[in-house]
Amino acid sequence: MEGVSPEEIAEKIREVSIAEFFEKNRHLLGYENPTKSLFTVVKEGVDNSIDACLEARILPKIKVSVKHVGENVYRVKIEDNGPGLPPEKIPIAFGKFLVGSKFYRYRQSIGTQGIGIKGAILYAQLTTGKPAKIISYYKKKKHTFELMIDVLRNEPKVVSYSAENISEELHGLSIELFVEGRYVEKGQSIPVYLKYLWLANPYVEITYDGPENGFKLEPVVNELPPAPKEIKPHPYGVELGRFRRMLQLTNAKTVSGFLSSEFSRVSPQTAEKICKLARVDPKKHPKNISDEEAERLHKAMQSIKLKAPPTNCLSPLKEDFLAEALKKEFQPEFVTVVIRRPNVYRGNPFQVQVALAYGGKINEIQSGQQAAILLRFANHTPLLYNQSDCAITRAVEEVDWRNYGLSQSAGSFPQAPLVIFVDLLSVWIPYKSEGKQAIAEYPEIIKEIKLGLQEAGRRLAVFLHKKIMREQLRMRANIFEAYSNVFSEFVAELTGKDLEYIKRKILELIKKGEFKEGEEKRLKEEVIEVK
Amino acid sequence: MEGVSPEEIAEKIREVSIAEFFEKNRHLLGYENPTKSLFTVVKEGVDNSIDACLEARILPKIKVSVKHVGENVYRVKIEDNGPGLPPEKIPIAFGKFLVGSKFYRYRQSIGTQGIGIKGAILYAQLTTGKPAKIISYYKKKKHTFELMIDVLRNEPKVVSYSAENISEELHGLSIELFVEGRYVEKGQSIPVYLKYLWLANPYVEITYDGPENGFKLEPVVNELPPAPKEIKPHPYGVELGRFRRMLQLTNAKTVSGFLSSEFSRVSPQTAEKICKLARVDPKKHPKNISDEEAERLHKAMQSIKLKAPPTNCLSPLKEDFLAEALKKEFQPEFVTVVIRRPNVYRGNPFQVQVALAYGGKINEIQSGQQAAILLRFANHTPLLYNQSDCAITRAVEEVDWRNYGLSQSAGSFPQAPLVIFVDLLSVWIPYKSEGKQAIAEYPEIIKEIKLGLQEAGRRLAVFLHKKIMREQLRMRANIFEAYSNVFSEFVAELTGKDLEYIKRKILELIKKGEFKEGEEKRLKEEVIEVK
Repeated sequence: MEGVSPEEIAEKIREVSIAEFFEKNRHLLGYENPTKSLFTVVKEGVDNSIDACLEARILPKIKVSVKHVGENVYRVKIEDNGPGLPPEKIPIAFGKFLVGSKFYRYRQSIGTQGIGIKGAILYAQLTTGKPAKIISYYKKKKHTFELMIDVLRNEPKVVSYSAENISEELHGLSIELFVEGRYVEKGQSIPVYLKYLWLANPYVEITYDGPENGFKLEPVVNELPPAPKEIKPHPYGVELGRFRRMLQLTNAKTVSGFLSSEFSRVSPQTAEKICKLARVDPKKHPKNISDEEAERLHKAMQSIKLKAPPTNCLSPLKEDFLAEALKKEFQPEFVTVVIRRPNVYRGNPFQVQVALAYGGKINEIQSGQQAAILLRFANHTPLLYNQSDCAITRAVEEVDWRNYGLSQSAGSFPQAPLVIFVDLLSVWIPYKSEGKQAIAEYPEIIKEIKLGLQEAGRRLAVFLHKKIMREQLRMRANIFEAYSNVFSEFVAELTGKDLEYIKRKILELIKKGEFKEGEEKRLKEEVIEVK
Repeated sequence: MEGVSPEEIAEKIREVSIAEFFEKNRHLLGYENPTKSLFTVVKEGVDNSIDACLEARILPKIKVSVKHVGENVYRVKIEDNGPGLPPEKIPIAFGKFLVGSKFYRYRQSIGTQGIGIKGAILYAQLTTGKPAKIISYYKKKKHTFELMIDVLRNEPKVVSYSAENISEELHGLSIELFVEGRYVEKGQSIPVYLKYLWLANPYVEITYDGPENGFKLEPVVNELPPAPKEIKPHPYGVELGRFRRMLQLTNAKTVSGFLSSEFSRVSPQTAEKICKLARVDPKKHPKNISDEEAERLHKAMQSIKLKAPPTNCLSPLKEDFLAEALKKEFQPEFVTVVIRRPNVYRGNPFQVQVALAYGGKINEIQSGQQAAILLRFANHTPLLYNQSDCAITRAVEEVDWRNYGLSQSAGSFPQAPLVIFVDLLSVWIPYKSEGKQAIAEYPEIIKEIKLGLQEAGRRLAVFLHKKIMREQLRMRANIFEAYSNVFSEFVAELTGKDLEYIKRKILELIKKGEFKEGEEKRLKEEVIEVK
């Protein structure tokens, strides 16, 4: 053979660290070009800040600064008023991939994997060679770290650390990074991201100081959504391999105890039933369960009828709050919000929140474009990239918007001055990649989004119908009014009554004709209209 | 605060293994639904086999078997005639993520990351709980392993091992997995994958034994493409962070030695020039270079004019071989192959290979559909998923196919009985995700693909023009022929010559008129036509 021998191949086999992997594959984390990279750095920082504030039940105040400091180089700084973090945890929380607090927790949050912010720090040191500066305001002290990632070992490298006393009861965290990038003001951009983020989280205060522009987004509500509760995994969502591992790791002393304590919706009675169905002794120690028994238990668990998982692990935004934010941003003629009931895919609870805003300033924003504007969100975070490849987009395209009085060519967006808002909430958002910009096309998810859009669409149809009716009546009234003088004179002559009296009577008649009482009432019940 | 305290959050911080990460995020590796999962398992196995054979310069003979063995459960077996692997390397090569032989090698190959086959093994144990069975025929012994992955530690777990002597000089590797899945025969399916794989590698013999069907694909050529050579990274493609690490890891004793030995296209003279430009002493030890000096060196390296990287790290398929395979598969009227010269993105050499096949059996395959069929490949491997989100698709849509006589609505595929074949070769394919089904949209890559398509398009245009001309001539000839009897009689009467003689002369005339000599010659020069 002229080729490489198996021994030579074997020689070359070596391990790479997860940090090396992501350094080489940075496009997987959203760092494939300078524009998207700068955007991703900001997004990861802001997402982290919001998660931290929500977890501590603090109304978030976030400051974002992006400054041009050299050719293609930007300084990004994100500050929050969250709880801060104990200094001893800073290095691994920021300097080591696959370390985090949320990987196995079943509740809604933006971050989950212990990857996002490390990706930003890695990108900074890769492109500008500069460490991340992290400040934690915690227990009357200001802890300042300069931090890098030791890529070959996936370990944090503390370049410098200092602590100083602070008098006030400050708390929060700030991170500063120097990164290569390209700044854009519109479209898939940092300002648009922040605005949409505020839209889905209108209790957040965001101060933005950009290289070209700045703004402050004030909260329109002063109340956090209910705190999502942590739940146990639901049996339907746990695969055999993981189930077997759970058996090995549990502290429970019996199989039935294991089943009822480690899964949601499995009561002690249900646990007994599962054991019986699987022909496994419920008193047996979990560690002594054979592979065959585990397989039977797993199968029984999947086949038994169980209640859907609890859904207090999700935290939708109140209808009014979202409507308020949409009104402020788009000043539409009409807005409606639909919150679907929670549902389940692969054992994971999820919930869809949909809104439609029609007319008003949306006409201007579209500026000649006819297609509706889609705003996609996952756990209240905007998704700006990969729209064409997302479950939300698919759902919008699959709805027949012509049913609701809009024009649409098959399989595309409706043509109207319309903003379509879709937010998917879940304990586990199935992103298509770690860049977290598009949602995988699970049929259950697409179906729920479509049902939400259809409900909102019906409400829009009623509004549009009413609008058309009202316009027709107004037109009729206008015509009538234009002729009312001539008509009044004619009637006065005919009846011999006072001309002014006749005129007044006819005008009253016109006004009264504008709406038929009952009809208006019926419409009001179906439509939540802009005041 | 009613929320979680920073201490509580800190408590929950923990590390997860990369195996756990991929188990939970299996959709990132292509395991998001049963159909795609079964497909991905086969793909990973076959890709590994082909890579192993090519590396050892062995004409690959691959056997794939997929059998239905239980409700939604399939047994997948892939066998090759590659070099096998020493038994001591089997556990980590198959049972530990991020271990591989190709991560830092700059040459064209299908696998690179040390992830693919482990993902398949993980998916098997997750869904059916069964270990992978791996057999390596190596040095007159048959080594049989049953192997699982210890997910929490990302370490291999050998369930059983045995070795027996074999008399013959067999070599090769086989892997058997039991996985949950759903089998489809058409579209994004295993049979289609294997057929397209053969198309781009027509020296491969593939025997397929599926649950519904089987086939054997015989090689049409008996010669491997040239072996791709391993090269050093090109300075333009190395970011600052990695450059600094290379300075720390090198065995070179001076900076100039480091530059000329670790990078391609940097001669000792060029190294001196870079040092001078960066104001760094070329004799300095690489480990003593300060961060600022490293930054200056890196900048100098980017700004100096260097030759493009060598391209013998790439291995395009010979034009004739590809044309041969396309002819066999599609029996087209016309086929043309374009191999572009290598180019560079982010310091990585890449090369585009394009083919167009027109008419023939393609009409049948499209069965009423009008749009051209796109076959996407990366390093000779078919990409079947995520077509809408791929650089290749973008390039096809951006070409104005109307220039070449095809109909097309703006921004979509041309409407014609046409197969468009695009293969991107590179030492580093920028896949959009680890599922490896779509290529990131680097402008340099899109541009090269478009240039290739345009060249092929021009050749197609000439063929189509000729075809139309020929048809017109034939039609004229037919009309002439139809009237030739009447005409002959008329001429015979007029001239008094023998009727049969006149008839013969006129038919000769018609035949000669079909092609004008010179024109045909010109066409032949431009068109590689099906014989």
